[in-house]
Amino acid sequence: MANVGFIGLGNMGMPMGGRLVDAGHRVRCYDTSAAALERAAARGLLPGSDVCSAVQEADFVISMLPSGSDVLAVFGERTDGRTLPLREGCVVIDCSTIDVNSCAAFHHSVALRNLLTLDAPVSGGVEGAAKGTLTFMVGGSQAAFDAALPVLEAMGKKIVHAGAAGAGQIAKICNNMIAGISMIAVSEALTLGQRLGLDAKKLFEISSASSGQCWALTSYAPVPGLVPAAPSNRDYQGGFASELMLKDLRLAEQAAIGSGTPALLGAAAAALYGMHCKTGKGRLDFSSIVQMLNEGERK
Amino acid sequence: MANVGFIGLGNMGMPMGGRLVDAGHRVRCYDTSAAALERAAARGLLPGSDVCSAVQEADFVISMLPSGSDVLAVFGERTDGRTLPLREGCVVIDCSTIDVNSCAAFHHSVALRNLLTLDAPVSGGVEGAAKGTLTFMVGGSQAAFDAALPVLEAMGKKIVHAGAAGAGQIAKICNNMIAGISMIAVSEALTLGQRLGLDAKKLFEISSASSGQCWALTSYAPVPGLVPAAPSNRDYQGGFASELMLKDLRLAEQAAIGSGTPALLGAAAAALYGMHCKTGKGRLDFSSIVQMLNEGERK
Amino acid sequence: MANVGFIGLGNMGMPMGGRLVDAGHRVRCYDTSAAALERAAARGLLPGSDVCSAVQEADFVISMLPSGSDVLAVFGERTDGRTLPLREGCVVIDCSTIDVNSCAAFHHSVALRNLLTLDAPVSGGVEGAAKGTLTFMVGGSQAAFDAALPVLEAMGKKIVHAGAAGAGQIAKICNNMIAGISMIAVSEALTLGQRLGLDAKKLFEISSASSGQCWALTSYAPVPGLVPAAPSNRDYQGGFASELMLKDLRLAEQAAIGSGTPALLGAAAAALYGMHCKTGKGRLDFSSIVQMLNEGERK
Amino acid sequence: MANVGFIGLGNMGMPMGGRLVDAGHRVRCYDTSAAALERAAARGLLPGSDVCSAVQEADFVISMLPSGSDVLAVFGERTDGRTLPLREGCVVIDCSTIDVNSCAAFHHSVALRNLLTLDAPVSGGVEGAAKGTLTFMVGGSQAAFDAALPVLEAMGKKIVHAGAAGAGQIAKICNNMIAGISMIAVSEALTLGQRLGLDAKKLFEISSASSGQCWALTSYAPVPGLVPAAPSNRDYQGGFASELMLKDLRLAEQAAIGSGTPALLGAAAAALYGMHCKTGKGRLDFSSIVQMLNEGERK
Repeated sequence: MANVGFIGLGNMGMPMGGRLVDAGHRVRCYDTSAAALERAAARGLLPGSDVCSAVQEADFVISMLPSGSDVLAVFGERTDGRTLPLREGCVVIDCSTIDVNSCAAFHHSVALRNLLTLDAPVSGGVEGAAKGTLTFMVGGSQAAFDAALPVLEAMGKKIVHAGAAGAGQIAKICNNMIAGISMIAVSEALTLGQRLGLDAKKLFEISSASSGQCWALTSYAPVPGLVPAAPSNRDYQGGFASELMLKDLRLAEQAAIGSGTPALLGAAAAALYGMHCKTGKGRLDFSSIVQMLNEGERK
Repeated sequence: MANVGFIGLGNMGMPMGGRLVDAGHRVRCYDTSAAALERAAARGLLPGSDVCSAVQEADFVISMLPSGSDVLAVFGERTDGRTLPLREGCVVIDCSTIDVNSCAAFHHSVALRNLLTLDAPVSGGVEGAAKGTLTFMVGGSQAAFDAALPVLEAMGKKIVHAGAAGAGQIAKICNNMIAGISMIAVSEALTLGQRLGLDAKKLFEISSASSGQCWALTSYAPVPGLVPAAPSNRDYQGGFASELMLKDLRLAEQAAIGSGTPALLGAAAAALYGMHCKTGKGRLDFSSIVQMLNEGERK
Repeated sequence: MANVGFIGLGNMGMPMGGRLVDAGHRVRCYDTSAAALERAAARGLLPGSDVCSAVQEADFVISMLPSGSDVLAVFGERTDGRTLPLREGCVVIDCSTIDVNSCAAFHHSVALRNLLTLDAPVSGGVEGAAKGTLTFMVGGSQAAFDAALPVLEAMGKKIVHAGAAGAGQIAKICNNMIAGISMIAVSEALTLGQRLGLDAKKLFEISSASSGQCWALTSYAPVPGLVPAAPSNRDYQGGFASELMLKDLRLAEQAAIGSGTPALLGAAAAALYGMHCKTGKGRLDFSSIVQMLNEGERK
Repeated sequence: MANVGFIGLGNMGMPMGGRLVDAGHRVRCYDTSAAALERAAARGLLPGSDVCSAVQEADFVISMLPSGSDVLAVFGERTDGRTLPLREGCVVIDCSTIDVNSCAAFHHSVALRNLLTLDAPVSGGVEGAAKGTLTFMVGGSQAAFDAALPVLEAMGKKIVHAGAAGAGQIAKICNNMIAGISMIAVSEALTLGQRLGLDAKKLFEISSASSGQCWALTSYAPVPGLVPAAPSNRDYQGGFASELMLKDLRLAEQAAIGSGTPALLGAAAAALYGMHCKTGKGRLDFSSIVQMLNEGERK
């Protein structure tokens, strides 16, 4: 069993840390929220008084933070002048979903100290975190991947080594860009079909076995009555929030700008989710985008 | 065995008629091209001297024509003043992919004569037509569908009754709109990944089992080396031509305008395929759209 | 003074007909709404009992109708079997804004009877109609244009001969497509600037004299406080309704599809206005599109 | 007359420095290209051996560099450990067009040393730089603006104080985003009109006096024969290069992402210019985007 330092106890970090406790690890943790630290203690984690105390004895340091600047505030050059007290041999795993530039800076910063690093963003949501069924998309050296695998397996079901440093983030945003675009595509097609008198079930049946087949339709249809488990059947509660899809689409758009990739549909999807979230639907599942096409005609 | 009148002997119509001959039907046919009629005779069809002679004894009339105006020139009000000599009890099946308004006019025109009608556009391409493995998406009454089924089964492997008159066309354009959009989405994601250093095989592996899964990626990947049978591995020869995808996207866009559906990504996909075809790539498979993102940086 | 037959007494047609009365013409009129006919009588027009009685003695027939099918219902092949009783030498002027195909059919239908025809859509709105300050964009022969000029001048201030039959409609939808796109462009730029701390007045001042100059900014700015007369200063009341801009953008999009022009921004603008109207804002001035970018962040 | 340190002697920087020499200033300069330094000497500037020697005696330091990282490499924390030797009282003016984050970091870095700073990107191109007719969009304190005005007036005709630090960059990218979008809008409208048979001159005449009026049409029309001075009349040579418009559109898109502004048309314009530049047209004037709509139909 290992000593783990866990930083960031939000909706995802808390249950991920809990899974590590369940697996028998000794998990010191830190979050800027005192309430989160209390909940963590109740879940069997050991709250540190600050981020340094949480990581100083750790074999593995794991972070799950909202943004690249949060990650760099912990692992990059610190404004308080202190150096994060990481042990020799410690493996540092950032599970946050962040922009590719910050991710590169994270690897660079920690690698300067001769420590192994991984970017390992996840998919699977809060439920996957609680059940330990997350998918990890992992970027970093083979040595780092091998070292971290047992710890990651305590939190996830599928651990994919996507490539060198950064590859985890890239894989995640590329995948989610496809997911976001195809969700809008499916929403447009289902709406168009319905307006023209085509039964949604028929389009579902036909496209599920044809060139229009995609996860957004077949496994997660945005209109009710097609896929029983889909959030569309429960008023778009739960699932993967529109505001999280928007975050990932923006990360993809930034990466496209940075790399000179003219990803028009990706950028359009980001803008459409941006408008959708502005109407107050950011916390609804991302399949609720279908409502933009369907709102009350005249108010 | 039935008497069939077959109108339109292009890349699709010719092998479809041939399959009917193979199944033992007596197939009179017509096309405005004398060369096509000669090839049809060589394939065992019986060329008529005009469209009337091709259909006048037919139990089933099947058309496979380029556009809605072609279909209405045959079945609508004729400029030559003659009425198409359709037998009582004849079932009229239009297999063309056409706009929803022309399709409605086709049904209306023929139904006035108390004949059963179907719209039955296909997918599966030239190869599917030759092998009799087409998918038919069929709109029309149950009676018409039941009557036509044996004939359709001689040409296709999968015959789906999508709904009432017009539902076949609608299902096809809705499906292909998803396919066109998701092909661009996959092209953007693969290009973005590659620019950022992600191995395309890794993205393929990850997304094929995740929320980015779609036919355009998993079965038809637009970059070589991922799906052996995909046209990307043979310089985008064969497959489903970009200009045909453009045609279907435009039909979908027209239908979206007509029905007041703000299908932004569908319209954007139509415009992108429009620009792609203008660069001379209309006959390449539609997965060649990936080249718009990847062309030589500076010439 | 001339005998005029005026068909279509809506928000635009009524004051246009009134202007003709003021100019001393004898204006017989027709509308399917009895209430409209009553208001017309009060304004000095002479209501006909049906469309035929309104036009049968007319030197000029003018129509102002909502859509292409309405225009063809009057001037095309009539379902009631009657032929519209147009006098020899009568000039027929359609002022409706309609699709290019219907416009061509209108000219064709009437020209078969050896009458002069014009398409003459207008800009300037209800206020321009009331004051006789409309702009007419006119398509048709020089002879027809010359003949109609005195009548048009009673209703408008600027009469432009755009070209042959159809050119009036084409000019109008091309112009309005630029207007719709640039209004969104200006909305995006003003919103972006404000979010980044730039005073809208400064951007207004700079762009009004630079490469970003456009009517949508300089004469009709979508945020209040920049152009006193702009609808943005009166809660987007009056002006040119979003639903009318949407209509014109859809006509342009249809024409783009029909002519194989990959007008991506035009189609995107149509879709954005489509979504905007669905939220109940169709009757607000089209500069209200800025609200799509600015709505309450989280409800 | 002042001592000026000028950093960056590219297509723009060289003639700007030359104008300062002409105005009687003593201009020390630096560039990483030895050839540029030789040309600068020939133009009357005084080449420094390194960036430090160019600025150490300067009353005004002016930079004209390609990107935000170049600017920060000079004024930010330097990797060589040396501090840029800026005199007390020196005013630092960055004329580069860069991203808003780097611009903020530039101001912050230099302001720490109690020096006045301005961001002052320009429009007007190489010709404007040579003739001293540039427009400067300036962000920074009133004191800095007042101090720098005489120096800026030696290089430009119009000096606009856009607001506080950063406002110059923001104004430029907002303005150019409108310009890029409206250029595409005009290209779509002119192409659509021509395909439908409308004379481009007629659309030009009509829209120049209507709601479609914009600089991109009226002053810079993308098809030849409308505006004599426009680059479209000289095969799109000269003018404002497509690759520079692409750069500015990407800066705007980045700023939109960073500020949560769903600027769909801005992002679409960036993607379209990205594809245009990939076909080898990056150095043609940005009005050449019209060619994307018009390329040879089938090659």
